[in-house]
Amino acid sequence: MNRISKIFQPLLIIPKNAVVRNQDLTSKSQRLMMECGLIRPSGNGSFFILPILQRSVEKLVGIIDHHMQKIDCQKITMPTLTSADLWKMSGRFEDAQSELLIVKDRHEKLHLLSPTHEESITSLLASIAGTSYRLFPLKFYQITSKFRDEMKPRFGLIRAKEFLMKDLYTFDCDLESAKISYETVNEQYKNLFDYLEIPYVKIEADTGLMGGNISHEYHILTSIGEDHIVQCKKCNKAVNKELLNEKQLICDECVPEDIEQHEGIEIGHTFVLEDKYTKALNATYLSKKGKPEILQMGCYGIGVTRLIAASIERFSTESEIRWPIPIAPFKLCIIPPKEGSKEQEKVKDLMEEIDNFLKSKEKSLRDDVVIDDRTQITIGKRLMHTKRLGIPFIIVIGSKAAEEINPTVELHDLNQNIVHELSITDALNKVMSQIKTYEIV
Amino acid sequence: MNRISKIFQPLLIIPKNAVVRNQDLTSKSQRLMMECGLIRPSGNGSFFILPILQRSVEKLVGIIDHHMQKIDCQKITMPTLTSADLWKMSGRFEDAQSELLIVKDRHEKLHLLSPTHEESITSLLASIAGTSYRLFPLKFYQITSKFRDEMKPRFGLIRAKEFLMKDLYTFDCDLESAKISYETVNEQYKNLFDYLEIPYVKIEADTGLMGGNISHEYHILTSIGEDHIVQCKKCNKAVNKELLNEKQLICDECVPEDIEQHEGIEIGHTFVLEDKYTKALNATYLSKKGKPEILQMGCYGIGVTRLIAASIERFSTESEIRWPIPIAPFKLCIIPPKEGSKEQEKVKDLMEEIDNFLKSKEKSLRDDVVIDDRTQITIGKRLMHTKRLGIPFIIVIGSKAAEEINPTVELHDLNQNIVHELSITDALNKVMSQIKTYEIV
Repeated sequence: MNRISKIFQPLLIIPKNAVVRNQDLTSKSQRLMMECGLIRPSGNGSFFILPILQRSVEKLVGIIDHHMQKIDCQKITMPTLTSADLWKMSGRFEDAQSELLIVKDRHEKLHLLSPTHEESITSLLASIAGTSYRLFPLKFYQITSKFRDEMKPRFGLIRAKEFLMKDLYTFDCDLESAKISYETVNEQYKNLFDYLEIPYVKIEADTGLMGGNISHEYHILTSIGEDHIVQCKKCNKAVNKELLNEKQLICDECVPEDIEQHEGIEIGHTFVLEDKYTKALNATYLSKKGKPEILQMGCYGIGVTRLIAASIERFSTESEIRWPIPIAPFKLCIIPPKEGSKEQEKVKDLMEEIDNFLKSKEKSLRDDVVIDDRTQITIGKRLMHTKRLGIPFIIVIGSKAAEEINPTVELHDLNQNIVHELSITDALNKVMSQIKTYEIV
Repeated sequence: MNRISKIFQPLLIIPKNAVVRNQDLTSKSQRLMMECGLIRPSGNGSFFILPILQRSVEKLVGIIDHHMQKIDCQKITMPTLTSADLWKMSGRFEDAQSELLIVKDRHEKLHLLSPTHEESITSLLASIAGTSYRLFPLKFYQITSKFRDEMKPRFGLIRAKEFLMKDLYTFDCDLESAKISYETVNEQYKNLFDYLEIPYVKIEADTGLMGGNISHEYHILTSIGEDHIVQCKKCNKAVNKELLNEKQLICDECVPEDIEQHEGIEIGHTFVLEDKYTKALNATYLSKKGKPEILQMGCYGIGVTRLIAASIERFSTESEIRWPIPIAPFKLCIIPPKEGSKEQEKVKDLMEEIDNFLKSKEKSLRDDVVIDDRTQITIGKRLMHTKRLGIPFIIVIGSKAAEEINPTVELHDLNQNIVHELSITDALNKVMSQIKTYEIV
């Protein structure tokens, strides 16, 4: 079991007034994440991920791994540095230059700090040209730091210069198969976001610099969103406003009165890229007839750190973080009585009961529980603090737990905004059965 | 359970002759890792980590996490880019420049692609100055990509320009406590390397650019090692030859005849840094008397991708990879009969038995098993391939498995170089009990 005294130290020691200077604190999530010791700025648009948030990031990485591998995606790691020559071959070096961070090595060669890896993965595929059509589709993904030289980094992890991204690339023998791969991945994005219980909007999107003709974005709607989403109330279809300039209408039947506009934060983006990169870099397969043919490609991103920040932006109150339960840094916090209080002695058996209960559970569940063992602090203060951090379930061992007859504890269910008064056994079982529903098998 | 047809595709499709061009193939491990589809070059000293090796990397990361967190190290992520200004404050910007990759952002600010993070973490500690002495020691670590503009990248992942490193930083209130932290971490390095069953040599080392007075290196001895280690046969004490230029003698009693020289690959390095960085960046704590005092610091690295490559270099034969069992990409491979062979029909019950056996096991064990379901290929070829990849345990369902009386399978224990003939139940139980010994609780 985890103990707050062991892991929350940076949180405890960050003075509230120290975190706000020099930062564009226009978003609620950034302020809350700084106040709760989840992140700290290290430069303009650049952040330390502190221990509590590191847990959430690793949880989300595990959940994404699970969902990607279910549809036969293979995890790899591509180098951060991509040769500028490859981007010159695809034609993107000039187009994207203003947002690229470029480094020259001691041999005077230029490399990008890759914001995305279409050229890199396609060069890998090109190097195994001569691969039989039988082995496709191939799907490769990675979860690594990406870089963008933002003109104006904003909102903490939502628009940072360095961020964690999942990028997946699919390769197929023809466009029809590429579209099937596209559907498979989009279906799995739905499963992933549904599992996370994130309310998202999927919209038709512009393909922009990326290439191809088909593209969708996944958005979390919040007032600080920088994308404008136009949606028809009647048919529910939605598009990025950028795209509307060309298309004018969302659907055939929609009339101006049905049209609504929302602001969204993009958390995912999918593209059928067709042969833009595979042709430029000559990535081929061997057809049934034994002839080399150009591969068809798709690419699919999820902003990992951005998804966390955007869901905090969406779910939190002004003063308290709320998490999608699967990626909360801990799922249950237990707050025992204050040291020296009259309750403390009386609940010793109860604390042992909790200990035995947790010991009987699997490691993965046990690791999701944290005891707020800072017993020199009052229950009230510790509860306030834990609620601010948004741990979804909190069990408070208060004065009623010390009663002779029917001792009870408080079970706070933050996401439902309910407090239950239950025996310790009932409280623990209730929490565990809730947590179990999120188990990935 | 994993199926080779689903995950080994890049391995299967990499033609042997395609991987050797343009590369300095002076090491056995680099050749074997390329031939087995574990890595592919992406540029000079830069590599793709392919799906099979990705599994090993993630296993090693999990094992390091476990060992670090056991001694209360807190995991974080620091930005890859560190402001050059910080390195100017510590005085290292000029000293290390030839090996630094430097990038200028759109606001003309210089950043390093960090090869290490002493300045970065110290700036974090400096920003929480005013922290009570009671909260120390603090230990922060990360496992992230690091960069070095090598003059001559060599031996694949052993000397690459981009590599995965675990870097840990400890902060204490006085030098005596810093030395206790140093001992704690070094003790845990011993536990970690012992768990991995890696034969290492710990030596006294030069502190070089890093600073401080106390430093040790951990080496795997192999003929391609670039460090020269001088050891006294009698007292077993060992030092880096660099250091010997100053000291002349290893110990008080050693005589020239007792001195041996070995070549080693450095896989870990530890330093007591004292106040070199904390003083330069003014990282203080609040003493008992309420006075700000400069912190004392230590730093501790492990080359994650290098450790994997170095142990492959040490353990493998000329033609077959051998892994430390805990980081083998899979622990058990099962090879069923060839499609259409007379055995295939007869062993159907056996295959079901295996399936049920594995289903009854925990997910973590199941995930370590792979079935070589490329049944269009002969058993012999698949066995050759699996041995080349070095999966430590291989169960072959051959002709003897189809016999009416006492059917048996072959259990190959590669690391022990033994083949057992056993009933399937005995074979599975034998493997599982072996694997169990590596379980981390």
